[in-house]
Amino acid sequence: MIKDTVKELISSGRLELINGGMCMHDEATVHYIDMIDQTTLGHKFIKEEFGQIPRIGWQIDPFGHSAVQAYLLGAEVGFDAFYFFRIDYQDRDTRKGTKELEVVWRGSKSFGSSADIFAGIFPQNYEPPPGDFYFEVDDDSPVVQDDPLLFDYNVEERVNGFVAAALAQANITRTNHIMFTMGTDFKYQYAESWFRNMDKLIHYVNKDGRINALYSTPSIYTDAKYAANEQWPLKTNDFFPYADNPNAYWTGYFTSRSALKRYVRMMSGYYLAARQLEFFKGKSKLGPTTDYLGDALALAQHHDAVTGTEKQHVANDYAKRLSIGYTRAQELVSTSLACLTELGSKPHCSSPTTKFSQCLLLNVTYCPPSEMDFSKGKSLVVLVYNSLGWKRQDVLRVPVFSDSIVVHDSEGREVESQLLPIASASLNIRDKHVKAYLGTSPGVTPKFWLAFPVSVPPLGFNTYFVSSMKKSASVSSKSTVYSSQGSEYSSLQVGQGNLKLQYNAAGAFSLYSDSKTLIEANFEQKYKYYIGQDGNGSDPQASGAYIFRPNGTVPIKTDSQVPLTVLRGPIVDEVHQQINSWIYQITRVYKGKDYVETEFIVGPIPTDDGNGKEVATEIVTNMATNKTFYTDSSGRDFIKRIRDYRSEWKIEVHQPIAGNYYPVNLGIYVEDGNKELSVLVDRSIGGSSINDGQIELMLHRRLLHDDGRGVAEALNETVCLGNQCEGLIIEGKYYLKIDPQGEGSRWRRTFGQEIYSPLLLAFSEQDGGNWANSHTPKFSAMDPTYSLPDNVALLTLQELEDGSVLLRFAHLYEAGEHKDLSALASVDLKRVFPDKKIGKIVETSLSANQERAAMEKKRLKWKVQGPPADEKVIRGGPVDPSKLVIELGPMEIRTFIVSFERSISGKQLL
Amino acid sequence: MIKDTVKELISSGRLELINGGMCMHDEATVHYIDMIDQTTLGHKFIKEEFGQIPRIGWQIDPFGHSAVQAYLLGAEVGFDAFYFFRIDYQDRDTRKGTKELEVVWRGSKSFGSSADIFAGIFPQNYEPPPGDFYFEVDDDSPVVQDDPLLFDYNVEERVNGFVAAALAQANITRTNHIMFTMGTDFKYQYAESWFRNMDKLIHYVNKDGRINALYSTPSIYTDAKYAANEQWPLKTNDFFPYADNPNAYWTGYFTSRSALKRYVRMMSGYYLAARQLEFFKGKSKLGPTTDYLGDALALAQHHDAVTGTEKQHVANDYAKRLSIGYTRAQELVSTSLACLTELGSKPHCSSPTTKFSQCLLLNVTYCPPSEMDFSKGKSLVVLVYNSLGWKRQDVLRVPVFSDSIVVHDSEGREVESQLLPIASASLNIRDKHVKAYLGTSPGVTPKFWLAFPVSVPPLGFNTYFVSSMKKSASVSSKSTVYSSQGSEYSSLQVGQGNLKLQYNAAGAFSLYSDSKTLIEANFEQKYKYYIGQDGNGSDPQASGAYIFRPNGTVPIKTDSQVPLTVLRGPIVDEVHQQINSWIYQITRVYKGKDYVETEFIVGPIPTDDGNGKEVATEIVTNMATNKTFYTDSSGRDFIKRIRDYRSEWKIEVHQPIAGNYYPVNLGIYVEDGNKELSVLVDRSIGGSSINDGQIELMLHRRLLHDDGRGVAEALNETVCLGNQCEGLIIEGKYYLKIDPQGEGSRWRRTFGQEIYSPLLLAFSEQDGGNWANSHTPKFSAMDPTYSLPDNVALLTLQELEDGSVLLRFAHLYEAGEHKDLSALASVDLKRVFPDKKIGKIVETSLSANQERAAMEKKRLKWKVQGPPADEKVIRGGPVDPSKLVIELGPMEIRTFIVSFERSISGKQLL
Repeated sequence: MIKDTVKELISSGRLELINGGMCMHDEATVHYIDMIDQTTLGHKFIKEEFGQIPRIGWQIDPFGHSAVQAYLLGAEVGFDAFYFFRIDYQDRDTRKGTKELEVVWRGSKSFGSSADIFAGIFPQNYEPPPGDFYFEVDDDSPVVQDDPLLFDYNVEERVNGFVAAALAQANITRTNHIMFTMGTDFKYQYAESWFRNMDKLIHYVNKDGRINALYSTPSIYTDAKYAANEQWPLKTNDFFPYADNPNAYWTGYFTSRSALKRYVRMMSGYYLAARQLEFFKGKSKLGPTTDYLGDALALAQHHDAVTGTEKQHVANDYAKRLSIGYTRAQELVSTSLACLTELGSKPHCSSPTTKFSQCLLLNVTYCPPSEMDFSKGKSLVVLVYNSLGWKRQDVLRVPVFSDSIVVHDSEGREVESQLLPIASASLNIRDKHVKAYLGTSPGVTPKFWLAFPVSVPPLGFNTYFVSSMKKSASVSSKSTVYSSQGSEYSSLQVGQGNLKLQYNAAGAFSLYSDSKTLIEANFEQKYKYYIGQDGNGSDPQASGAYIFRPNGTVPIKTDSQVPLTVLRGPIVDEVHQQINSWIYQITRVYKGKDYVETEFIVGPIPTDDGNGKEVATEIVTNMATNKTFYTDSSGRDFIKRIRDYRSEWKIEVHQPIAGNYYPVNLGIYVEDGNKELSVLVDRSIGGSSINDGQIELMLHRRLLHDDGRGVAEALNETVCLGNQCEGLIIEGKYYLKIDPQGEGSRWRRTFGQEIYSPLLLAFSEQDGGNWANSHTPKFSAMDPTYSLPDNVALLTLQELEDGSVLLRFAHLYEAGEHKDLSALASVDLKRVFPDKKIGKIVETSLSANQERAAMEKKRLKWKVQGPPADEKVIRGGPVDPSKLVIELGPMEIRTFIVSFERSISGKQLL
Repeated sequence: MIKDTVKELISSGRLELINGGMCMHDEATVHYIDMIDQTTLGHKFIKEEFGQIPRIGWQIDPFGHSAVQAYLLGAEVGFDAFYFFRIDYQDRDTRKGTKELEVVWRGSKSFGSSADIFAGIFPQNYEPPPGDFYFEVDDDSPVVQDDPLLFDYNVEERVNGFVAAALAQANITRTNHIMFTMGTDFKYQYAESWFRNMDKLIHYVNKDGRINALYSTPSIYTDAKYAANEQWPLKTNDFFPYADNPNAYWTGYFTSRSALKRYVRMMSGYYLAARQLEFFKGKSKLGPTTDYLGDALALAQHHDAVTGTEKQHVANDYAKRLSIGYTRAQELVSTSLACLTELGSKPHCSSPTTKFSQCLLLNVTYCPPSEMDFSKGKSLVVLVYNSLGWKRQDVLRVPVFSDSIVVHDSEGREVESQLLPIASASLNIRDKHVKAYLGTSPGVTPKFWLAFPVSVPPLGFNTYFVSSMKKSASVSSKSTVYSSQGSEYSSLQVGQGNLKLQYNAAGAFSLYSDSKTLIEANFEQKYKYYIGQDGNGSDPQASGAYIFRPNGTVPIKTDSQVPLTVLRGPIVDEVHQQINSWIYQITRVYKGKDYVETEFIVGPIPTDDGNGKEVATEIVTNMATNKTFYTDSSGRDFIKRIRDYRSEWKIEVHQPIAGNYYPVNLGIYVEDGNKELSVLVDRSIGGSSINDGQIELMLHRRLLHDDGRGVAEALNETVCLGNQCEGLIIEGKYYLKIDPQGEGSRWRRTFGQEIYSPLLLAFSEQDGGNWANSHTPKFSAMDPTYSLPDNVALLTLQELEDGSVLLRFAHLYEAGEHKDLSALASVDLKRVFPDKKIGKIVETSLSANQERAAMEKKRLKWKVQGPPADEKVIRGGPVDPSKLVIELGPMEIRTFIVSFERSISGKQLL
């Protein structure tokens, strides 16, 4: 009955569904693929349950707003307008003066005006207007008392207050229409008290006659704004960082709960791959699916989830959901891979005999299948799945116990491999975290990381075999280990390929040289921490989950007594450094790769001095970067940042550090006209360039005070074993490369996609060498001679309930970003699906809830002040159903619903 | 629509209206007449609006329970059962052990088993059972989560908890039925969350099968208990005082907000008189009525109203409502008296020319009409109305300016009068409180109280004239003023009539002697205060609005330097004593009256030493009272109290003072076999006999800490003029008499009724002596030769909307209380209404919502354990419509709806 009422209210337009994702996602710490996925999920539900297509973006609470939200999750999902509240207080004040709270936002340089959206910024907050109009039961606001017999009769007072609020808002906005948001967090637990009072307010205000008040919806409001036929001011770029006070920059949350951020990112890449494998196997209503993981991931994009601004028990809940989702998806993935690899497996294979296991805890050096004893003739089968549309070369690492190991590929050839002693810092984490995660101790301790190169076809897998061998000829090379100290460093150089790193006497990098690009650059890499303001002084603003408010910077000096350890071998060179008692760092240079990989282990951050600490690493060069750096917008477009400067309004600088921090999802780079220094990250993180030639990343935050924005807890994460708790340790990686000017984007885009989608490993074992008799060792879903163009990624390949398939391709480059790769690209669907015949293909909006053509037709075109832009927007043309070639212009993401007619080859896949 | 739903729920029995007064009145600090009035008002509404007659008493929150509530407001209104929770924790523990939480309560010695009622005491509180069953939105209790997909699924846990709670309660009660009260204060602001969870609980609990849970009502529960056909334990007396912890006796509220308590009592007597006058005039739908005052008074009986346990702003609201009600009733009273007194006034007189004013602020020595200048030939007309059914002699007092005053009666005879200089303590209060109450200063200060005797017929008025006269013959006597100090006291004696008081050298009473009864008694009267426990020590229980927790007793020594002042004159002798800087006392002995009247002015109680104080006066005699004293139950039955003892259970004494306090509404007395010492009060107050031969009354409380029972404010009343605030001053009177053993009840009952119903004064003025030409000076509504018997009071004479009349008579004596007056009494209605013919008379229940006969027929008769009582209950017989004589047995209150046919004499009254 309530459902019918709600549906009736919706269909009559009295209740409007807006935004419509599974949650109101964050915009700083979320990856655009997650934004798309969670919005698609929500829009699908709304379409199926209510037959509705949301028209309005409603991101009223996220802490700053990204360009990607505006153009991609706004215009490209078909929204006519986008409303929000949190922009820098100085920006807001300026806009009030110039009546520019409502603008047309052009978020994409590549798309230009074709992705314009009307953006409405609320003048104060997302609550009722000033003057006590909160009508929750027992709220402080006086109810509208219209019974003259009662002592609190107050109709005139309440009407006057309401009219005054309306006129005040009208004075700083354009057209005759204003919007009051009659609610806020945690309200309407009893809607009756609100509606009773609003009914009265509307009645008496209209009787008063100075203004006209009505129940409205964001769509009605948007249409009224549009009907005014105004020209609106133009807004480009984004709304980061957000500050609501001179000393309150909400840039701490870019890093808060760094472990949760990494977990979300890992699950995101896994979810992409798992859906591919779910499609290959055929989605089953019975068996495990990826649905729970999809739901959990969607929820985790909330602006108080991946942001790290939730209470600890809520963070635990998000993690628990991800874990359950992962467990189910993992089961599906193992089954699907077994089906794909087993020879003679039936169509709709569901219970293959081959059992695969996976190692989620590889990041803490824990992988039971690889830690087995190979001495008894058994060998480890490693099936390596590549979810990218390109063939991929990479180096795998698994922990092993034995020191005599040999690796073979699927054709029986021996593969060169290297054993690296496992650092005690890693084993320390392993012991604690395996116990904390599984409840039991991990057992026998592996001694080495086994590293070996693999090669995997696009959308496919390859198989490798790890076994034991008597010490003899061609076993895995043990790394040479070399401890170096003090003055010896100056002669230290690592790198077996083009890239070489030179260390100076202090044990820090001093020279980066690439013999292929001839790049040479001096630089230093080091750690520091900011002391989190405790808020106990005259200014009560503490640093906390949301807000980064440093109270002094402390350089972390590496203890020169602790030797630096170098491991060398045929695959990779590693430099191990104990930076201080709670920071460990491993720098890797792979022979075949031209970038630096840095693994950091940070924590437990000590707080026994009473200070919260926010730990950053910095790369310092002598590049003349002129205050300028670039950070990605939600993992997609790179936006130019200039220190102590905002492109569209004049900033008064109060927080020279916190106020220059920006979210980094993909990477950050600087350039000096000759070269580009790029750093890519494995999760969402805060970053900046605080000095010219410098880049810094905030890696981990541990704080002792709440910052007063709602979480009401200090961001003080701990890990407990029994009653023993200690501060959380963060393990992670970042990647660094220096390219000639103009060349950096290729690495950032291509390798960035590899970071997002790491190779998926599944382990089995064989007794003797019989695997090949019953298994396909290598597989690609695509035509063996085909791979996606270098500038295109497959974002979504997902079977829907009705058997149709959701397909989404993304061009990875912005217009003008790369001389070759920013061009129009095309994907040949027939070669992507060589074994299937596409019966029907429909292009849809980004969130797949309407046909693209219909969306474009009905979307409102807003007028912008000033002369029209001189634009050359490249977009792909319509898809010819006979040719089935999809064109993609720079930054274009195209979404399709595809129906396959039948399997062509009769292969087991469908 | 909601009204229809509610009516449907009620008529189908799913929603039951119980108790049904305007509020859940208190039982300690309310007068039985107010209890009856407010219940009648509520029951009338329920009858008219819903056609319902409540069957159940539901006094779940009041802080202790009175015998009058059980038998009068329970059995006599037709209730079958009465449920509550707050009884002494030791009593409760005992009852749990003996399964005596549910009993038959025989509250009246006079009525015996004829007024038995089933009384159910809740085992713990009036909330849901233990185990987290609170289902308000956002409450702490876990919701019943039956979705197994959710992490908080808990059906088994919740069912087990519910069943455990039910079995625990079943173990301490009789029969197979238990009641859970699923709610508490401030809950059900959103009922949906409760019902959703209770629906689930009931469903799953019944599925479980160990117990059977159902939505029920108190009537359904009561019928189930009755159907079990058990014999129940007998309970007599009452449930005072209440303690919920060893150091938490709720006996402070007997006195808390003593000024509000007095205001309520004044309004109560006024309301009784005003309804009589409203009836005489004829109730008008247009003109002012007594209805608002009735509503305000009803509300003020709430157990957080007259109790003094509300927040200050709520107390202000109660007072404001009383003030509005009084203002309207006063207008009606003035009009009615003018109609009654004006010769040739028309039937349904509504706008008489004579204007009367009244003086509510006489208690602070303020009465503008009497303070006028009589020198210019004008004289003050004082119309004196007597609402009692007996002829009445009394002494009036009004403030006057002139010192040459003469008083004449309605027949032109000079009346002896006396001028008494107004004490500066009184003028001090006058100045402040008139300003605080009216907003303007009172103007010229009167110099004297004019005292003169008046005589007024029953249910009628007499008129007196006050004028000025040149200093000559027979003007008002000025009192002789005599200041006495130290050793002079010993010779000091006051009293012009039978009663004489002797003072000792310390300025305290030493001897009371009555030459008529030959009573002589030594006694002392003095003041002390208790220090209110601050709750800051290891035991956090503070003394507060509810709880009296003394932390030491401090005697107040009268400053022997301050002279005692004696005023003597023909009407009254007064002894003025400045006890200390903040206590002033006037003791009066009237020539024609055989009791002592003591006026006290207490406050502002100083708190600058950081201590809250609770001020008591005590009368100390050498009477051997054997720990025994008597206090009234809600102003009606006297109940025997024995110090440190409870008649039905064994008490462990932790608070020897607070635990022996009882509510005093009418009076308190002790006896020693030879004589009775009685003290009567002008408001509800706490009192005790802490030592043999002693009586004490708590007069005023000012405390600095909250006692943690819900009010969340310290009981620290102040009066503010502008920004200047000081502690509240309490002005009041108590009356003392010593009678021969067995004789005290006559004074307590008759004079007690006079205290409740003081003479009502209305003032006008005449120019010259022309009043008699146009006005009836004297009037009685009754047959001039008739008055009610000495043991009967007219409680209610009230015209209803339909023109019928609500009539209520009360026998004032208990069975055996007085050798003559405890007999059956009768009222001759024809002589009460000599000018009217009664067409129809129907006896009803006490609350007038059903015919008495029908009520008696359907009321459940409960079985009591043990042998039947040997009873001789006297009740009046049915009223013969031709004779119209109403009989009343001891303590009987009989209620009638009377319809008058027509006026017999054509007099103006109807």
